[in-house]
Parts: sequence; C-alpha cells; structure tokens
Amino acid sequence: MGFMQALRARWSAADTLVCVGLDPEPAKFPQTFAADPDAVFAFCRDIADATAEFACAFKPQIAHFAALGAEDALERLIAHLHAAHPGVPVILDAKRGDIGSTAQRYAVEAFGRYRADAVTVNPYLGRDSVQPFLDHADRGVVILCRTSNPGAGDLQDLIVPDDGGGGRPLYQHVAGTIARDWNTHGNCALVVGATWPAQLAEVRAIVGDMPLLVPGVGAQGGDAEAVVRNAKSADGTGLLVSSSRAILYASPGDDYADAAASAARSLRDTLNAAR
Amino acid sequence: MGFMQALRARWSAADTLVCVGLDPEPAKFPQTFAADPDAVFAFCRDIADATAEFACAFKPQIAHFAALGAEDALERLIAHLHAAHPGVPVILDAKRGDIGSTAQRYAVEAFGRYRADAVTVNPYLGRDSVQPFLDHADRGVVILCRTSNPGAGDLQDLIVPDDGGGGRPLYQHVAGTIARDWNTHGNCALVVGATWPAQLAEVRAIVGDMPLLVPGVGAQGGDAEAVVRNAKSADGTGLLVSSSRAILYASPGDDYADAAASAARSLRDTLNAAR
Repeated sequence: MGFMQALRARWSAADTLVCVGLDPEPAKFPQTFAADPDAVFAFCRDIADATAEFACAFKPQIAHFAALGAEDALERLIAHLHAAHPGVPVILDAKRGDIGSTAQRYAVEAFGRYRADAVTVNPYLGRDSVQPFLDHADRGVVILCRTSNPGAGDLQDLIVPDDGGGGRPLYQHVAGTIARDWNTHGNCALVVGATWPAQLAEVRAIVGDMPLLVPGVGAQGGDAEAVVRNAKSADGTGLLVSSSRAILYASPGDDYADAAASAARSLRDTLNAAR
Repeated sequence: MGFMQALRARWSAADTLVCVGLDPEPAKFPQTFAADPDAVFAFCRDIADATAEFACAFKPQIAHFAALGAEDALERLIAHLHAAHPGVPVILDAKRGDIGSTAQRYAVEAFGRYRADAVTVNPYLGRDSVQPFLDHADRGVVILCRTSNPGAGDLQDLIVPDDGGGGRPLYQHVAGTIARDWNTHGNCALVVGATWPAQLAEVRAIVGDMPLLVPGVGAQGGDAEAVVRNAKSADGTGLLVSSSRAILYASPGDDYADAAASAARSLRDTLNAAR
C-alpha cells in the first residue's frame, strides 16, 4: 500500500488529524533517561508507543538525530514504528533539495536506508530536483510551500506573475505548479504553517484535496481550530497537524508518556471538534 | 582564522580557483577498492591527497555518505582533511534549510559534529532559517542562488518586484538581499551554476567581491573559461569552481589518483588562463 492510501486509511480508521513529531532533545528528556546510552531511541519509542492511537502519522526530524550522530537510533526507531504501528505512516522530515543526481542519493537515504513512507523536500531547485523523489510513486513527497517561521515571507510571499496577467505570492505559485504539473503520480503533499490561517485557506482552494502537513500549532503558537476551519479538505480530512515539543515534553517527570498521550489526545479532540 | 580569511589566504598562496568535490559513488571506484570495507573513506582520502595542491577548497557532498550510512567515514575524512591539508577549507555540501530551532541542530551537525569550515544552505525559508548558520561568524554560509540544474529556473527565474518599481528574477533578489541584509558578519557566499554564464555576470555585479561557489563545469557541461570571464571578482579571485565527477572518476584504473591530480591541475590551468 502506498503512502497516500495508507494515510487515507489511517484518517478513516483512527479518526485523527494529529501528526506526532519526533524531535529528540536530550536536555529535555526526563531524568530517568540520564543514564541510558540509548536514550534517543528509547525516549522516542516510548512517546510513539504512547501516542500512536492518536496519530495519523509520525514525523521524525532528522536534524535532531544527525546533530547527535544518532543515525543508528533513527534507523531503529523507524523500524520499530513500522513493526509496532504498521497502520501509521512515517514521514521523514529532512527538507532535502539538490540537483537530480544528488537528489537520487537523498531519495535512497530517505526511502532505502531509513524506509520512510514519505519525506519533506524543498522546491527551490525546481522540478528536476524533486523528480527523483516523485518517481517513487508509492512514497509521499511533502513539499515546502508556506512555512511556519517568522521569516517565511522573505521569499515565499514575493509576488510573481500568474497565468492571467496579474500576480500572486510565490507560495501560491508553488502550490499551483505542484498540483497541476508535479503530482502526476498523486503522491504530493504540501507543508503550510499553522501560523498563517489565511494562507492555509488560499492553498486549500488551489490544491483540491491534496494533503497538507501543518506544523506550528503548540510551541509555535498556531491556532489549531483555525487550521481545521481553513484547511480541511471536502471530506473533513486532508490535514496532518504536526505537534512536536508540546507532545514530547508535556511533562519532565516520570509521567512523560502519559502526559504525551494526553497532549496528543487533547489535540486530536480539539481538531475533531472543529471539523 | 575564519573561513573567509582562510579562503582568501588559500587563493593567494596556491593560485587556484578549483574546489574539489568529494561525492563518493562506490560503483565507480577503481577495482582496488572492491574488497576494502573502508573504501568510501580511503578513496576520498586518496583523491584529496592527490589534488590538494590544486584545490582552494574541498567540498564533500553529504548525500553520498548518508545514502551509504557512512557518516563515520565523513567524520574521519574531514578530520583527515584538516590534519593533512590545514590550509584548504572544507565546505560541507548539505543544502540544509529549516525553521530556526531545527536549523540550530543542522548548524551543530555541520560545524560541531563534522567540523566543516562552511556549509551550503537553502534560502527558501527566509532569513531566520539561515541565521543560526550566519551566527557562526567564523564559518562560511554558502547560500543557493542560481543552481546548475535544468529546472533551476522553475522558481529562481520567476520575476519578483525590485526596489525601483520594476522586476527582476528571484535569484537576483536573493543575491541582493543576502549582500545587503544577511551578510552582517561578512561570512556569506553564493551558489551560482556554471551552466548559466550570463547569470553569473549579473550576480557578480550585484554582490561585489562575495565568493561564488560554481558547480556545473565538467560533467554538467559548464564552460570553465566563461565562468572566470563572467564571474571573477575585481582582484581575479572570488570563485570556487567546483568539479566532482570529472576529477574523482578521471580514471577507473589503478592510476585514479594521478588521473584525478591531472584533471584538477588541468582545470586550475584553464581557469587561471582566463583570469
């Protein structure tokens, strides 16, 4: 089963739009992990196991593993996610982008080595830089559109010509180009930040029912209800609302797993109430 | 000594504009490495040692290591480069780009873990996504501007408004914004592909003597002489003309190191003749 089918099946079976982000920061781990040489794996595994029932996807962020030299822990973590939670797709958050011959190597990294079901990529280098990912028709390619950070607009909001002789922001051009030209295998999704509800609505109007990965609720301040109101697809799904720190570090104590589950459940309920 | 000082010192001392790209592809290694369990490290080390005298910088490309699970080889390779060739700066070609808190982890990956002198990054997420790299004033931040691939223009050539009420391509806006606003520590450089000599000249006119990393000569077909004519800085330097495959795989035989040295020397001479 390909990523898109798995995602739609999960939305239907689990009734949740929550994507659990796995961004390990050892300084924030509960004290119980202080003496654990495999703390990065063990903490992420515990969080994933506690939150799986509320998750439509898991999203490990590779920088947090790479900075620690913990690629091996990431490999084992994704293997665990597939084995223990086979219905929950895994999105590797890597935001890769390079010329075609190098992009092929990054695709091997994400899909071959790490066995991710989907990967985030950057569109700045153009279609041929994304094509090696798109060619894996059974994997998802989650492309940056309008990001959640304060400086997102520096490039993404610049006005570029549209087809009708007018202009539109670059992020809308990116959304339109991907929906029209890049999505030939039906395996594209877009990253649009929760911090910009108006932009979410504009992107949704452009891309039909394409899934949107929405970071920025929780620690970054995005309004979860506004996200759903503005960006759900026609059938009330279409969203992966990602939360990382607010779930992972919900409690610094021994109840970290229960606290993470409560945070994920609460976000699920908030999102579902707005559907 | 910071990256920019080291680069200028190297240009002056070694009289070369060649950046040796290290993109290991085991299928292309000479037969002598077939039984070597540490072939990725050993091949790259041999190429670097053979070409160092012709190099103003080394540029290992991280996807080629990550796809193989060879992060350890990359760590040891960069440690070797620093120890054996202390005058030659090392640029980690990673093209990272993410929101600030994650970009900080990528900066730890590049500068802390791998001890790179500089790293390539993607500007699509805006200034705050690049700031964690820029804050390392002694390290170089090499930002994508106009890349060398066929689809580079999909986004980079889109016309955006300029300050005078007219328009200019996005890549020129990126060049101007970085030169004017992002380069407060003087540690920025830009990636501009050799496959587009006219764009090189336009970027040079915008950024003064900012270093340009120029991939795309050799295997990608860029004209080395046109690069120098169009893009050298006022003092005849300002360029890191990167060649990877044409140097690394100059010979499939036991003379691979000599052939790599000849290819690097030849490129140096071609570039210097056009200065």
